[in-house]
Amino acid sequence: MARDPKYDILFEPIQIGPKVLPNRFFQVAHCNGAGSERPGFQSHFRAMKAEGGWGAVCTEYCSIGPESDDVHRVSARLWDDGDVRNLGLMCDMLHDQGALAAVEIWHGGLNACGLESRVPARGASAIGSPFAFMRPCKEMDKQDIREVQQMYVDACKRARDAGFDILVLYCAHNEALLHQFLLPFFNRRTDEYGGSFENRARFSREVLEQVREAIGDDCAISIRFGVDTLDLPHGLGDRGIRQEGEGVQFIEHMDDLVDMWDINVGWAVEWGEDAAPSRTHAENHEGPFVDKVKQHTKKPVLNVGRFVNPDTMVEVIESGQCDIIGAARPSIADPFLPQKIKEGRLDDIRECIGCNVCISRWEIGGPPLVCTQNATSGEEYRRGWHPEKFTTAANADNDVLVIGAGPAGMECAMVLGKRGMRRVHLVESAPEIGGQMRWVPKLPGLGEWGRVVNYRQIQLDKLKNVEVMTGTTLDAEGVLEYGAEIVVVATGSHWAHDGFQGLTNEPIPGADASLEHVVTPEQVMLEGKSVGQRVLVYDCETYFTGVGMAEKLVREGKDVTYVTAFDGVAPYTRYTLEYPRLSRSLRELGIDVVLEHVVVSIEPGSVPLADIWTDEERVVEADTVVLVTQRVPDDALYQQLAADEDALADAGINGLYQIGDCLLPSLIAEAVFSGHRLAREIDSPNPRVPLPYIRERRLVNATEEDFRLDSAATGAVAG
Amino acid sequence: MARDPKYDILFEPIQIGPKVLPNRFFQVAHCNGAGSERPGFQSHFRAMKAEGGWGAVCTEYCSIGPESDDVHRVSARLWDDGDVRNLGLMCDMLHDQGALAAVEIWHGGLNACGLESRVPARGASAIGSPFAFMRPCKEMDKQDIREVQQMYVDACKRARDAGFDILVLYCAHNEALLHQFLLPFFNRRTDEYGGSFENRARFSREVLEQVREAIGDDCAISIRFGVDTLDLPHGLGDRGIRQEGEGVQFIEHMDDLVDMWDINVGWAVEWGEDAAPSRTHAENHEGPFVDKVKQHTKKPVLNVGRFVNPDTMVEVIESGQCDIIGAARPSIADPFLPQKIKEGRLDDIRECIGCNVCISRWEIGGPPLVCTQNATSGEEYRRGWHPEKFTTAANADNDVLVIGAGPAGMECAMVLGKRGMRRVHLVESAPEIGGQMRWVPKLPGLGEWGRVVNYRQIQLDKLKNVEVMTGTTLDAEGVLEYGAEIVVVATGSHWAHDGFQGLTNEPIPGADASLEHVVTPEQVMLEGKSVGQRVLVYDCETYFTGVGMAEKLVREGKDVTYVTAFDGVAPYTRYTLEYPRLSRSLRELGIDVVLEHVVVSIEPGSVPLADIWTDEERVVEADTVVLVTQRVPDDALYQQLAADEDALADAGINGLYQIGDCLLPSLIAEAVFSGHRLAREIDSPNPRVPLPYIRERRLVNATEEDFRLDSAATGAVAG
Repeated sequence: MARDPKYDILFEPIQIGPKVLPNRFFQVAHCNGAGSERPGFQSHFRAMKAEGGWGAVCTEYCSIGPESDDVHRVSARLWDDGDVRNLGLMCDMLHDQGALAAVEIWHGGLNACGLESRVPARGASAIGSPFAFMRPCKEMDKQDIREVQQMYVDACKRARDAGFDILVLYCAHNEALLHQFLLPFFNRRTDEYGGSFENRARFSREVLEQVREAIGDDCAISIRFGVDTLDLPHGLGDRGIRQEGEGVQFIEHMDDLVDMWDINVGWAVEWGEDAAPSRTHAENHEGPFVDKVKQHTKKPVLNVGRFVNPDTMVEVIESGQCDIIGAARPSIADPFLPQKIKEGRLDDIRECIGCNVCISRWEIGGPPLVCTQNATSGEEYRRGWHPEKFTTAANADNDVLVIGAGPAGMECAMVLGKRGMRRVHLVESAPEIGGQMRWVPKLPGLGEWGRVVNYRQIQLDKLKNVEVMTGTTLDAEGVLEYGAEIVVVATGSHWAHDGFQGLTNEPIPGADASLEHVVTPEQVMLEGKSVGQRVLVYDCETYFTGVGMAEKLVREGKDVTYVTAFDGVAPYTRYTLEYPRLSRSLRELGIDVVLEHVVVSIEPGSVPLADIWTDEERVVEADTVVLVTQRVPDDALYQQLAADEDALADAGINGLYQIGDCLLPSLIAEAVFSGHRLAREIDSPNPRVPLPYIRERRLVNATEEDFRLDSAATGAVAG
Repeated sequence: MARDPKYDILFEPIQIGPKVLPNRFFQVAHCNGAGSERPGFQSHFRAMKAEGGWGAVCTEYCSIGPESDDVHRVSARLWDDGDVRNLGLMCDMLHDQGALAAVEIWHGGLNACGLESRVPARGASAIGSPFAFMRPCKEMDKQDIREVQQMYVDACKRARDAGFDILVLYCAHNEALLHQFLLPFFNRRTDEYGGSFENRARFSREVLEQVREAIGDDCAISIRFGVDTLDLPHGLGDRGIRQEGEGVQFIEHMDDLVDMWDINVGWAVEWGEDAAPSRTHAENHEGPFVDKVKQHTKKPVLNVGRFVNPDTMVEVIESGQCDIIGAARPSIADPFLPQKIKEGRLDDIRECIGCNVCISRWEIGGPPLVCTQNATSGEEYRRGWHPEKFTTAANADNDVLVIGAGPAGMECAMVLGKRGMRRVHLVESAPEIGGQMRWVPKLPGLGEWGRVVNYRQIQLDKLKNVEVMTGTTLDAEGVLEYGAEIVVVATGSHWAHDGFQGLTNEPIPGADASLEHVVTPEQVMLEGKSVGQRVLVYDCETYFTGVGMAEKLVREGKDVTYVTAFDGVAPYTRYTLEYPRLSRSLRELGIDVVLEHVVVSIEPGSVPLADIWTDEERVVEADTVVLVTQRVPDDALYQQLAADEDALADAGINGLYQIGDCLLPSLIAEAVFSGHRLAREIDSPNPRVPLPYIRERRLVNATEEDFRLDSAATGAVAG
């Protein structure tokens, strides 16, 4: 199908200083867990996006020296020749695909923790950081300023030597020293680097001048600029920056020194206002805060805003909001987004759902990113997976029966289809596919999560060797008689009916969802079980279900008490950046939030709670208790089948596997991965056990051969 | 000085199965941040202890396969030949020193997070973990059991091949699968692996039998066994294990299969009961819970209990509590503890203070360990530091003036003395040395922290080229006239008098410690400023000062309200394992704990607070407010000296440096490091900037040469 000409504008090249961006797609800086220490991961991950059509691809934030050390979180680094060598591999691979390589030049100022390097942090003023423990940074004196500016220059020269085309100087989120100098909230200096706007901008101007002087036309120079720190509770207030004040003033002031503006909003404590979850923010949510920028610059402007819809992309360019489509999460969910638009294959786009689990892994610090939509993300190098290419399985002459069409089953059937299995039957007992995703997207704010089903529905429909059968329940006998050689059980899980949870590893006395006054999320969302006026939600999950149920019910007019043993509402949302807004909104909605309490027992009409520190009891009156305690795998069918090996053999079944929540209830992203992993390895010697992956580390007496995909994949790591 | 013969017993060899432990000092498993991925760090760190006289040295917990993946926390691994190669370096270096090499064999069961490997966790029952997010593990079926037992065997064979002498099977803290199978709290099985004691012990017996079969007499086999999970609030209760019940029963049951017992107590959520902080636990605090073990075994028994006093060590052996002195933290604080006892140099022992900052870095996940007492810990390889050996400085013909005898100044003067500087003068304005450590150890429970001063006092007294002058205040003129060529300013910091803090980066309205009703910690602790009956402590620090002041004052009979914007009391103590007891004890003491509130202003008699989520105000009546907001560097002297380069030159001063809190107020460990680092590098080209250190990572196209100390130290990493 040909591309609609209205999208042509997205494929027009544009000049960025001395470089030409071949189209309007720019993967802005985002973390992936690779840094400079895992060059294979870094280079293959970024190059996949270039292959998928992104005109420029950037590193994550890249530290310029040991004092800007963010361990335990993973950043890139340009500290030494080794980093040049490692990041050089990424540049080479991007150039091979015709893309520009960009690097985000970062000094953390007061936010650098120095937990690895143990070098004291230096900043504009001796101010504490929300990220660093127990210390203000050192206020830079004149010698410090000269030294740090030289660090910028040295790192930019190393970037050039590594092969980067675009230097993106980080001046946003107040995570970066340049931004900290600019914002009065962080700059309390009284010398020529503090006070007036010109003074606060001086540090940035001097850095840019010195970098330009050192680099000349070897690289384009951009600023990633946080133009608006917004009006947030306990935010920066009038000591931050707003677009229509010093925001555009800074742009005019610096315009002669840059080749491009990469514009965003937000501040460090609530950077979910920039990397905004779909729970609270729509596509192009930054528009109103960045729309004046182009009027104040002669240079190309880039915006982000979780752009996945090409119509929106065209609109923001044609309306004069920006020239270049920046994206991080959409490029993770679909590295081939530009190519699919280019080829008119819009229905093949794997749209980002805005859940931010990708970010959660960086926030935890250490593990590679994961993506709910794209199971291959982070696996390009270490497992050799490609999001769009699938080899024909060695055992493709087998028929596969996949039982259960939740995230794991849908993904598994789809990938098995793409791997050319003779016939794949995806059988689901419910009237439609989706599994838990039939109801999760109906929780307040989670509508876009439904894309997990939509994308797979479209793909499954296209695959001629895959058949989807809903409303069909198979028991063990039915499976044995089905005639498939390979059986994959993906029957999911359900929320415990007896209040079983990991705090006591026991049911809760009185918890019984067969009673009228006790319900589970599925009973409410799928079966319509009725809920009384006074509701207590007991949340042992830490993520979206408990808060989702509480919000849904309060919006329906119920009186809701939310109880958790944890120290905050849904603490995993601290990692997905949903936490601050969620913490405020639950309370604004009138939910009584009770932290650090456990439910002792459940009695009709009343629920005694105990304080986890003092054991002090209090009783909450409740007509209905919603149990969000622990999920229980629905693995009876698998167990029954696995128990009779002879019957399997008699039925001609040569492979029986368990994936997703019926194996282990976890993140949706992990369910999808589970199904994808099995399908990718369905022809391995033992598909039950994942194949080894490459671990990039120093190896004593190592050669490059030790890191070759072939050697690792054939046994360098035992499973 | 010769050793007292009463300590001879500590140096008697003892047989452990097929191996001979050369003395009674055993460094038990503890984390350091090296894992299997940083072989230089791992090997040099462990070998330093062997050099210091430890008869056996163990790795940290060592994972047996990808499903037991604890990222973001750093564990060792024996997954593949690369790990064998990397850990083999450690074994070789230990053997060169005559020590035995031990490895702690670990499968995490329900606690394995799989954030790197993405392999589902398997455990005894489908139970949730306090460490893993949002999932129960998979309950192991018979096939799983066979597979996991084979993983144990394979990993033990790899351990043998790497050169390990002792296999320590981890069965403690319920962090390990063996322990989880044994404890009814985690084992809800109804088959032959659950229910009765024999059934719950079956998994361990089978693993041990299979390992013994595979390994024969190549290695000694030990079990690290948690014999008592204690009686703790919200603990395991009667579904845990107690010494005098199944504790000794398990020992009798398994005794034929092991060569040694490594015994400890506690459970995962409160493993501070094992790695116990000095705040709450004295030396040999485990004695009462482990003292029956030896009556039930024929094999040698090891205990831990933060042993630093050789008299205690002799006593626990002679009393029949144990045969072998196990230690983790004491071996970090002083790798040469055994040798110093052996040589009768007891006053040279650098005693562990039990602050647990070493552990805090593992809990954060990623960075190398640090130690308050031993600045060289973790720096053995990457910076080439030895805790007991010091080279003569190239500029030793200089005199050094160190101003300020806090942790940084004391350490710096001591190391400069050991590096043979001609004369080192340590000048302190207070009547005694110690800086903040004059009063911090007087906070409740922190008495042992005074060892930071004691050790350095003794060392300084011994150094003939170092002179300590207390009660002497120097101004800039005095420094210039002093006659030293090198000047080190270590003048410390003080708590802000105006309530300045990192939440608003502003003073608090009404906060003024010159007023009667507003005080700082130093005013109370050093100056005796009086405190009224109703006290509000405002804690923005996150660590020990705020809670320490609150506890001190409530113990003196005051009515105390503790206010913090954070979600728990002193949240950094979550990483030092002090948090659970602290959270309970503050409340038990009657302190009104107010979380997630900020102080809006301070008025005589009343303090309005605001809820951070709702902005709702409440007023606390208080006669006195204690400001624990932010520390302010006392750097006026340094600034004054640095501002006049000509005056420095005229005075013959060729180096002026700033260390410790007057540079950047941070952890005591970082102040000590700051002083140590400067003294180690006082003869480097630019002592102001730390020399580069070796970063162990994969380097594309690397050779071993890239990791040699020489090449790194001369510029592989730019600083």
